Amino acid sequence: MDAQMVEALRGIVGPQHVLTEIEDILPYGFDGTAALKGRAGAVVFPHSTEEVAACVRLARENRVPVVPRGSGTGLSGGSVPVDGCLVLCVAQMDRIFEVDERNLTLHAQCGVLTKAVDDAALKVGLFYPPDPGSMKISTIGGNVAENSGGLRGLKYGVTRDYVMAVRVVLPDGTETWLGNKCVKDVAGYSMKDLFVGSEGTLGLITEVMLKLVPRPKARRTMLALYDSMEAAAETISAIIAARIIPCTLEFLDRVTVGCVEDYAKIGLPTDVEALVLMETDGHPVVVEEEAAEMMALAKKHGAREVKAAADEDEGARLAAARRNAFSALARIRPTTILEDVTVPRSELARMVAFINQVAKKHRLQVGTFGHLGDGNLHPTFLTNELDKDEMHRVELALEDIVDETIKLGGTVTGEHGVGLAKKAFVKKQLGEGSYELMRTIKRSLDPEGLFNPGKMFDL
Amino acid sequence: MDAQMVEALRGIVGPQHVLTEIEDILPYGFDGTAALKGRAGAVVFPHSTEEVAACVRLARENRVPVVPRGSGTGLSGGSVPVDGCLVLCVAQMDRIFEVDERNLTLHAQCGVLTKAVDDAALKVGLFYPPDPGSMKISTIGGNVAENSGGLRGLKYGVTRDYVMAVRVVLPDGTETWLGNKCVKDVAGYSMKDLFVGSEGTLGLITEVMLKLVPRPKARRTMLALYDSMEAAAETISAIIAARIIPCTLEFLDRVTVGCVEDYAKIGLPTDVEALVLMETDGHPVVVEEEAAEMMALAKKHGAREVKAAADEDEGARLAAARRNAFSALARIRPTTILEDVTVPRSELARMVAFINQVAKKHRLQVGTFGHLGDGNLHPTFLTNELDKDEMHRVELALEDIVDETIKLGGTVTGEHGVGLAKKAFVKKQLGEGSYELMRTIKRSLDPEGLFNPGKMFDL
Repeated sequence: MDAQMVEALRGIVGPQHVLTEIEDILPYGFDGTAALKGRAGAVVFPHSTEEVAACVRLARENRVPVVPRGSGTGLSGGSVPVDGCLVLCVAQMDRIFEVDERNLTLHAQCGVLTKAVDDAALKVGLFYPPDPGSMKISTIGGNVAENSGGLRGLKYGVTRDYVMAVRVVLPDGTETWLGNKCVKDVAGYSMKDLFVGSEGTLGLITEVMLKLVPRPKARRTMLALYDSMEAAAETISAIIAARIIPCTLEFLDRVTVGCVEDYAKIGLPTDVEALVLMETDGHPVVVEEEAAEMMALAKKHGAREVKAAADEDEGARLAAARRNAFSALARIRPTTILEDVTVPRSELARMVAFINQVAKKHRLQVGTFGHLGDGNLHPTFLTNELDKDEMHRVELALEDIVDETIKLGGTVTGEHGVGLAKKAFVKKQLGEGSYELMRTIKRSLDPEGLFNPGKMFDL
Repeated sequence: MDAQMVEALRGIVGPQHVLTEIEDILPYGFDGTAALKGRAGAVVFPHSTEEVAACVRLARENRVPVVPRGSGTGLSGGSVPVDGCLVLCVAQMDRIFEVDERNLTLHAQCGVLTKAVDDAALKVGLFYPPDPGSMKISTIGGNVAENSGGLRGLKYGVTRDYVMAVRVVLPDGTETWLGNKCVKDVAGYSMKDLFVGSEGTLGLITEVMLKLVPRPKARRTMLALYDSMEAAAETISAIIAARIIPCTLEFLDRVTVGCVEDYAKIGLPTDVEALVLMETDGHPVVVEEEAAEMMALAKKHGAREVKAAADEDEGARLAAARRNAFSALARIRPTTILEDVTVPRSELARMVAFINQVAKKHRLQVGTFGHLGDGNLHPTFLTNELDKDEMHRVELALEDIVDETIKLGGTVTGEHGVGLAKKAFVKKQLGEGSYELMRTIKRSLDPEGLFNPGKMFDL
């Protein structure tokens, strides 16, 4: 990067907040996605919207691409640097300005950790429901930019459902608030909704205004073990048909259960085809009633065993099986390719069966876990990126899976984002019209293509 | 309109579905907004997405503006024709294709009535919560285009929260689906969210995929009477502080209560400063518990009288007071100017007081009612549009109200839309950056400005 620009960056954020040496920059060269990396020209740590705006204007004058970054926990390569770019890492923009109990809102800078948002809500008996797997270390700005999901999607929705407003710095270096504290607002297009999930391609989200809800007073965690995935899926359909919307309905397939048991020694039987984690939360009376009905439905639809946690601690232990799934799978082989296909809930059992067929056909090891309630699957291929032939077979398998997903009315990414990892598939899913609409928007807001270039689509 | 174009329209939708005679077109010259009208060149009734697309392409070739229209119940002039335009009235696109109980979705054409959507949901024990005042006659496509609100915003959100996908015909005459049946989907920008609330300025929504939820098993309606608006607002704050989120918290001020009693003879005391209608719904045990707590809080915070409806019928009678508010006010003077300002809930009492001061200052008669829970107010000026001096004073009053709304962090329209009525105020609220962003989007999607021109903003 041009020495004069580096000097100017130091002037904006302070010299100690600008990294340019290779060994300093290296840790900012990748995110949580396997086999993707790049090298920035500089990594800068701004502290305010004004500093971000000044950096963006400077980058623009120098025609240097800007790549926004939070904690780098993304799973689609959204924050992987373009070579020579300016990485704006918001990790130090970590102030919570306000928890407004009367309006049920929280106003924070983008670099606040997701868990810190919910902790602040908890202090006043409120709740920030979205709980992506990385919530202990991910930033709220990254969550908003990726529209992160989590385990509570069916009942509580995703990050988008809790974003009332965002403050953004646009590609031209101007800044603006989009949205406000009002529960209802129809003054103009919902520009905030355009920025939620835009993966840093339209600007940088510097502050967020989030919606909070009352914290549920009770919660009940249950575990059900099945000899077939179909039976597990039927249980879920029966629960929904009984008009119960649980907060969590997670599953692990046989391979994943085996890996988790091997890893965490929880005492899980390793011969089950599906382990289902169910949680209901809310008013204590309703929770007890729903938990009893869910357990009865699980048994009726063929669960080999159903057990309820005696208390929150035991519930947390049961839930650990699910929380450990990815780590447990990642130990088996050098390269773990985590997918994120999502289908309408009714098609889930069919999709899981298809994934297993595909793995067999292409001689691959796959473990699948995910969100039964919202049809969001995480088939995880256990591979070695040095084995070219195996990697080629993974590509073929992914193509098969994507084709089937689209056939079933699904999406190639339910919660991880497009980034670099899913770019090739998005057009196939969206179709020409919808895809072009998206590119039109990008071109109109970032005509020079300097903001997180090459992510989501090529211009 | 050019005779050849009219002939071509007849060829597309059938001759009986094209109106061109003045006396036939007249009823399509206005919507529910006072003092706004225009005369279309032709009014056409398409039956499918394909027919809509063909009409749009034809209009584009002839450079004739297109104005989408549902039932014409809008309250901001969004469907008022531009002189000489082609009105595409979707009233006959009224098929419900599917209620999918496994995925909790409903797929319908845009011209289905809002109430018919909820009726279809009710048949299988499901619920479509958004309930705009006009729901018996408004179309679902109009609701989506306007992002309509209703009485249940605080607990259930607004129309946007129930739109999973839309099928749209774009200004260039191409058509595409935006969104799908998946609970989670992050493949690309949320283009559906751009179209929800875009008031027909970016294209015509021909089909919708809606999210349904389980129908609450119980509901309890209560009425509380207050001698001051502040006491009513304090009750609401206390209810929220008790972590209760009621489905309805409506209020009528003294003027409105007087008009309603005069109109409907319900037996309301006409000397109260605020009448508050409260409803809680959900599990019977929770409903009873919350209702008791809400009534206790109302008494504690100074309600003169609190009563609960004995059953659903009595609840409906109590709710009728609120449902009749606008009609009752509209009887008093020839022209009823219904406003829609919204502030963060915490600022509501202050805003109501301000509105009354402003009315006094400008010697105007105003009745205010609205949604206490979500800060959405409907100050209603009782006027005569033939009285130029009075209309001028209304304009001055509105400017005062808009300025105060913006000062309090509010919005000039909570649920009625911008259309023609709020155009002058939107820029003031949004600020330059946000406003220009919106115009950039409009220009990029409709470069010739032929789709519902002049609505929301000028290009």
